[in-house]
Amino acid sequence: MKIGVIGGGQLGRMLALAGTPLGMDFTFLDPAPDACASPLGTHLLAGYDDSQALRQMAESVDLVTFEFENVPAETVAFLSQFVPVYPAADSLRIARDRWFEKSLFKELGIPTPAFADIQSQADLDAAVAAIGLPAVMKTRTMGYDGKGQKVLRQPEDVQGAFAELGSVPCILEGFVPFTGEVSLVAVRGRDGETRFYPLSHNTHVGGVLNLSVASSTHPLQALAEDYLGRVLEKLDYVGVLAFEFFEIEGGLKANEIAPRVHNSGHWTIEGAECSQFENHLRAVAGLPLGSTAKVGESAMLNFIGSVPATEQVIAIENCHLHDYGKAFKPGRKVGHATLRCQDATTLKARIAEVEALIANA
Amino acid sequence: MKIGVIGGGQLGRMLALAGTPLGMDFTFLDPAPDACASPLGTHLLAGYDDSQALRQMAESVDLVTFEFENVPAETVAFLSQFVPVYPAADSLRIARDRWFEKSLFKELGIPTPAFADIQSQADLDAAVAAIGLPAVMKTRTMGYDGKGQKVLRQPEDVQGAFAELGSVPCILEGFVPFTGEVSLVAVRGRDGETRFYPLSHNTHVGGVLNLSVASSTHPLQALAEDYLGRVLEKLDYVGVLAFEFFEIEGGLKANEIAPRVHNSGHWTIEGAECSQFENHLRAVAGLPLGSTAKVGESAMLNFIGSVPATEQVIAIENCHLHDYGKAFKPGRKVGHATLRCQDATTLKARIAEVEALIANA
Repeated sequence: MKIGVIGGGQLGRMLALAGTPLGMDFTFLDPAPDACASPLGTHLLAGYDDSQALRQMAESVDLVTFEFENVPAETVAFLSQFVPVYPAADSLRIARDRWFEKSLFKELGIPTPAFADIQSQADLDAAVAAIGLPAVMKTRTMGYDGKGQKVLRQPEDVQGAFAELGSVPCILEGFVPFTGEVSLVAVRGRDGETRFYPLSHNTHVGGVLNLSVASSTHPLQALAEDYLGRVLEKLDYVGVLAFEFFEIEGGLKANEIAPRVHNSGHWTIEGAECSQFENHLRAVAGLPLGSTAKVGESAMLNFIGSVPATEQVIAIENCHLHDYGKAFKPGRKVGHATLRCQDATTLKARIAEVEALIANA
Repeated sequence: MKIGVIGGGQLGRMLALAGTPLGMDFTFLDPAPDACASPLGTHLLAGYDDSQALRQMAESVDLVTFEFENVPAETVAFLSQFVPVYPAADSLRIARDRWFEKSLFKELGIPTPAFADIQSQADLDAAVAAIGLPAVMKTRTMGYDGKGQKVLRQPEDVQGAFAELGSVPCILEGFVPFTGEVSLVAVRGRDGETRFYPLSHNTHVGGVLNLSVASSTHPLQALAEDYLGRVLEKLDYVGVLAFEFFEIEGGLKANEIAPRVHNSGHWTIEGAECSQFENHLRAVAGLPLGSTAKVGESAMLNFIGSVPATEQVIAIENCHLHDYGKAFKPGRKVGHATLRCQDATTLKARIAEVEALIANA
């Protein structure tokens, strides 16, 4: 089966590593000449709005999927004329726009911070008056890893904030005094079958995911599955989707969804029976889903900016290196390590070893 | 790190799948345009004796390794002038010639069937008189998967047998009334550190490996490690090497060694902490070796001639498909399934499920 992937970054690369053993071939559309998925398939070097390249991809593959959601709606619509596209256009339309996303949560009865649509500084002033401070202002589209957002703590922060974020459509979100952040990764097949991975507990540094630890029998697993199940059903979603939540006293508040394989699910490569990457491909290809059960106790640590020396990373017992083959650059996700251990105590010790390596790199 | 691989078949393909996450890039030299490793790296489409292509490979990679041992000695010697080559020329020279191989076993005190060098029909007649029948005649080089060999049961089989196998140098081996076949896969680093995987119990059909089951605390593990350790030490070997044994009453007799990753070690992809493919690359690259410990109970079943329908293979619980992306052809190894289960009883049931699928394909 020939799979087209919009985007050729590390998610595309890991999709190809998971799909090749299933007999799949990959074609990536990516405007970056050094797209790191490129060695694992055919690389169409073109923009996401290049209709000739899109046409070429559509004609050479059996289906198209995405490694990121920030592609023009026209791209998805254009491709859909010629070839099956999963997840579908409507799922992408909603997931890539924070206003649509939050409105969906509200419609489905999923608790989420107070939010308001911001089309002008006047809208912002009114929203701040209603929601109060502190609050977080975010661009409706194109934000990721803490980019395209600004925390508003006091009235001075509000002045000119709309212009500061580029005078583009935004939302204002009430601040949630959360005790932790968790995410749930699920996969849903073409036939509606749905499987959930264990919740992972996430730690961010400067808005970028730093550490994900897969949980065991988390007390909020069932609640998270209920919320995510509503979203998947409503969107008639096909593929992997990740739902990020704020953990609050005794419950969850929805933060955002990502209609794709997700950084907080990278631990599943070694830590689950069937990884999020393989399960996404199984789902979009109409194949039976794989088990989302854990294998041992797992965690994932991101390498941001640079990857420590290979020999040091792999010398750590239970440690699996995933070097994305990307040029090092401050703030850039260039790799991760998965730890898979027999028990939680060992896992904790191994996390400390990897953290020490990162600190000394 | 840039790795050159002589051969671009499924072993090269699985090396690339294991090495890409370590940040390695792959170049394969293979005369077959449809070499199945080709989508995962640069494919130099040329013969193994093409000095221009060999030169090109040597200049573009950091080291060269092999996915099979039947390459001309001149190829290895030529490459060695320009780039590090692992395993070294001498290891390949011995492992690819049954006479040198068996002589090494004898020199190292490793029990092996009676054997004799056959350069003519007269040599054969004399050897049969000394060793007796039944016996197995094998070409000294280029034999694999039961090819290049003939079982001699009665005097009529002996007549003209030398010509029948192509009048090339052969050996005659005394028949061993074995109770089973086991293989031991080991990895040895540049610094001499050696690690052994658990013995796997192998079943062949028509000379081709059919099923490998990883053992738990096999009573002959220590003896097999002793024998293989002697070989690795003697050859100052670097990389993965597999040693196939006949299991006899209370002991082992050496059958043959393969100086590369081996079909009977494919279960390690999911079934061991670090696979034979990753460990081979770690060894040849001078990196620390990975753990050879088992993860659960594992087995590997080969798909020969054709791969059953993907949706049927992956619908089996605990089953991981490895489709090599090769054209189907009778007798050809085109894929395998790894099973990784929590206990031996479940493993046995799953093996039966995969076998039923193969039988009904």
